[in-house]
Amino acid sequence: MLDTGLVFASDSRTHAGVDNIAKFCKMTVFSQTDQRVIVLLSSGNLAGTQAVISVLKQRNAKPGVANLSNAESMFDAVTLVSDAMRDVDRRDGHYLQASDLHFNASFIMGGQIAGEVPRLFRIYAQGNFIEASLETPYLQTGETKYGKPIMDRVITRSTSLNDAAKCVLVSFDSTMCSNLSVGMPIDLLVYQRDSLQVRMCRRFEERDEYFMALGKQWTEGTRQVFRHLPDLDW
Amino acid sequence: MLDTGLVFASDSRTHAGVDNIAKFCKMTVFSQTDQRVIVLLSSGNLAGTQAVISVLKQRNAKPGVANLSNAESMFDAVTLVSDAMRDVDRRDGHYLQASDLHFNASFIMGGQIAGEVPRLFRIYAQGNFIEASLETPYLQTGETKYGKPIMDRVITRSTSLNDAAKCVLVSFDSTMCSNLSVGMPIDLLVYQRDSLQVRMCRRFEERDEYFMALGKQWTEGTRQVFRHLPDLDW
Repeated sequence: MLDTGLVFASDSRTHAGVDNIAKFCKMTVFSQTDQRVIVLLSSGNLAGTQAVISVLKQRNAKPGVANLSNAESMFDAVTLVSDAMRDVDRRDGHYLQASDLHFNASFIMGGQIAGEVPRLFRIYAQGNFIEASLETPYLQTGETKYGKPIMDRVITRSTSLNDAAKCVLVSFDSTMCSNLSVGMPIDLLVYQRDSLQVRMCRRFEERDEYFMALGKQWTEGTRQVFRHLPDLDW
Repeated sequence: MLDTGLVFASDSRTHAGVDNIAKFCKMTVFSQTDQRVIVLLSSGNLAGTQAVISVLKQRNAKPGVANLSNAESMFDAVTLVSDAMRDVDRRDGHYLQASDLHFNASFIMGGQIAGEVPRLFRIYAQGNFIEASLETPYLQTGETKYGKPIMDRVITRSTSLNDAAKCVLVSFDSTMCSNLSVGMPIDLLVYQRDSLQVRMCRRFEERDEYFMALGKQWTEGTRQVFRHLPDLDW
């Protein structure tokens, strides 16, 4: 979450063990031009996240019902996601527990509703949530560790949308080098503050030229930085 | 493990929860000039790692006993560490299990014994171990994820000892920015192949000038690299 807008990215790998991987988009957009843009990124058990998103979409289609199209604030919107999670958990939880499993879907949700500033949340599997702040402008979910240092070094609230988008892509590239549970394609969405519409959204497929060039230049650039770091005096 | 030698580093933080942290050196050196240099880095439960090292040191002082001073190869040496771990586990394991705990000490061990090339191992808590190879020249233990991407980008077998030492320090700096369970001081040891003695060993205390300068230059350098990455074409 930057002064000038929001950057969202998600990979597309789901797996049930390394011998069972698949591709599913983990980014869902709810938008009405000039009124609201709400982006949902999901992680965790696919059956859980898909059910939550289906519930949200169904409710969205019903005018009388409290839903993401008529929520007055991002706080109300995130509460609706939390409600949907708990509804799904109420239905499935017992059956999962019988196999020592539990409902582990979690989400990142952000966007802007007309009349409010852009806001960004992370929703835990229990349905409670935290909001990004000035001190901690970005949130991650899923396999977060490998990609975090580069974000910590580069991202501040005043980073440009452009630089932040590149940083997020490099962060994913770093994670994919180290962890098979994260994989292409990458979905990237850059939201310009107060635009109240989605203008920049792109999918990077396997072997995307720009994405590969970025990874290569980053590797070469960082090696260069190393060569210029001061030598250790023993 | 590089063509020209070995680089070892360890932090000094131990903890039993965030409300109980302490400093202990996790690097132990066994060396006899012109004969052998063996370096042991430990991670996991401190009672376990300290007991293993005490056992190894006591055995080392007894000439008739198979120990790290008379092991004929690094393979034999790492087997002796494994034996010591299993001896400690035999003594403590049942008592830990009664509290739902288990012996979770693990080690990185590397060095050179006259007549052999330098070798590097990672020993798991169960006492089995793997050896670094041409394809995967470095090994980590403990909180490994945050610091891994930078190693993957920079380290190959032909990296210089100097660059590798800087990379390891930056890797620790990245990890410490993200995880409170890793903390200063950092112990760094650089072993030159075939030297059969320790010439370069240094401790970086909190607020070490060189270490702080390194972190600062790295952050500035990487931000610079970002600014020069190609812009995304929407």
